[in-house]
Amino acid sequence: MITVLSGGTGGAKFVDGLSRVVPPRDLTVIVNTGDDLVWWGLNVSPDLDSILYVLAGMLSQERGWGVEDDTFHCLEAMRRLGEPGWFSIGDRDLATHLLRTELLASGKTLTEATAEMARRLKVEARILPMSDDKVETRVLAPTGELSFEEYFVRERHQVPVEGVRFSGADQAQPAPGVIDAIRNADAILIAPSNPITSIGPILAIPEIRRALIESSAPVTAVSPIVGGAAVSGPAGELMRSQALPVSALGVAQTYREFLDTLLIDERDRQLIENLQSLEIGSVATNILMKSSEDKVRLARTALECCISDSSAARRAG
Amino acid sequence: MITVLSGGTGGAKFVDGLSRVVPPRDLTVIVNTGDDLVWWGLNVSPDLDSILYVLAGMLSQERGWGVEDDTFHCLEAMRRLGEPGWFSIGDRDLATHLLRTELLASGKTLTEATAEMARRLKVEARILPMSDDKVETRVLAPTGELSFEEYFVRERHQVPVEGVRFSGADQAQPAPGVIDAIRNADAILIAPSNPITSIGPILAIPEIRRALIESSAPVTAVSPIVGGAAVSGPAGELMRSQALPVSALGVAQTYREFLDTLLIDERDRQLIENLQSLEIGSVATNILMKSSEDKVRLARTALECCISDSSAARRAG
Repeated sequence: MITVLSGGTGGAKFVDGLSRVVPPRDLTVIVNTGDDLVWWGLNVSPDLDSILYVLAGMLSQERGWGVEDDTFHCLEAMRRLGEPGWFSIGDRDLATHLLRTELLASGKTLTEATAEMARRLKVEARILPMSDDKVETRVLAPTGELSFEEYFVRERHQVPVEGVRFSGADQAQPAPGVIDAIRNADAILIAPSNPITSIGPILAIPEIRRALIESSAPVTAVSPIVGGAAVSGPAGELMRSQALPVSALGVAQTYREFLDTLLIDERDRQLIENLQSLEIGSVATNILMKSSEDKVRLARTALECCISDSSAARRAG
Repeated sequence: MITVLSGGTGGAKFVDGLSRVVPPRDLTVIVNTGDDLVWWGLNVSPDLDSILYVLAGMLSQERGWGVEDDTFHCLEAMRRLGEPGWFSIGDRDLATHLLRTELLASGKTLTEATAEMARRLKVEARILPMSDDKVETRVLAPTGELSFEEYFVRERHQVPVEGVRFSGADQAQPAPGVIDAIRNADAILIAPSNPITSIGPILAIPEIRRALIESSAPVTAVSPIVGGAAVSGPAGELMRSQALPVSALGVAQTYREFLDTLLIDERDRQLIENLQSLEIGSVATNILMKSSEDKVRLARTALECCISDSSAARRAG
């Protein structure tokens, strides 16, 4: 059993690679829901959707979010009607939000709605929201607090970040299956997602963090930072707001309570010793996922780290 | 002030013509809501939409419903997700239902939501739902009761009709403005809509029927029947279910309590005497609306009937 913690874009690429290497029934993806929003009256779960789409073979390769070959005619019509249009929902993508909204309105939990949609799209891997409770990532900007999507999409992450908090995380329960997926995993992987706002909300749920710390499974993370910058998105700016170094070292610090191995880029080789001093193993490789081959190779490397960790642990035991 | 009672398809064509002849601020359209449905969790008002779209210059000319040049990608995606797809909602059309659903969820009435959407689409004529209360057209088929859309769209009106009822009509209040629009009208027009399931639900609201009977304004209807058949749709079958002759005569019988003049097709000239015996005046003309010119000409003819009626009434007075 392989369990992955993931956000959207970078996470979806990594999960894509894993799904080509691990039998789908052995794969569980625990997904950030801190970015979830109600948009046009619909329940939208951006990261769950990206994982669902990539596993269903529907994710737009070009955009990295939404459905391949989608159109945006409803969005155009909404703008014509004077509704806000900064959050792009494609026409095919809308179906997912319409169905999720109906399933939730009928009394299903987000876990149940996600499983139902995965079943209908013939996705065999298990996709779990981190929680059925509301957890909201709030970004503190000089002008006030923003939701993650307001910060990321509306403001194009161009406003200074003074802080990040996960409203509701303290009281949130892990979704059914999440703790077992961590406890029973043979390997736990952390996708190269934004450590602050994609993996951060998952770790902000006390029981999930505790389960990760207590787990005997090897934990391997893939750094989303190469050199001194994020591969994509605002991870750098967000790490700075947490007084973390914008480097693989900052990533390791975020995960240090439970991390065994960090996959870093070849260009970050010089950090291996610093990582050792944090008692975190590291493997330097090409961590950029530009092709399907890159994704498969990175997934294999991450799994190999876990296997060698397990062997080392057995030898030590 | 011109007040029109209307359903969707044929009514929208007639309203299109009227809007080219009557200053928009002098035009009020009272619209059937008996076909309204909740579809994919959204509040859909097919006839209100057709009138809104035609007045905003957005109605698909080819289909007669929905938005011009629309796509159906969300519908395809819904089908892929295993949701029923027999009711076609286009991607641009979806925006209307999303916004209506949001406005209703925020506490607005259907009248307010309709006015708001008309304002945003720069429609100056007034569009009024017949009622803010729920009235449902129910079609009794041998296999049980169907909603109007189940009968009309899902079953393609190919099931025998044993009866029609308007659930909730007895208790329904006219929407704000409806009674005044009838009382204060200089002319009342009844569009060439299905008399049973498009105009029928409006007349089934007791206060509206009473206001029409009591109104001193001339009332002119356009027959949706030419010869022994409906110009389009299932009006013939539905009239038969009400033991009405499928002819302009049956239309006149339906409206006889308040109708002054019926516009009939030239081919139905032989009915003029029968109509006279019902004390209903008639004008035979080309009532088919195939071009914009047809629509304008028919609107002019209908208005002229009202003017000559008024003059006659003044002379009689």
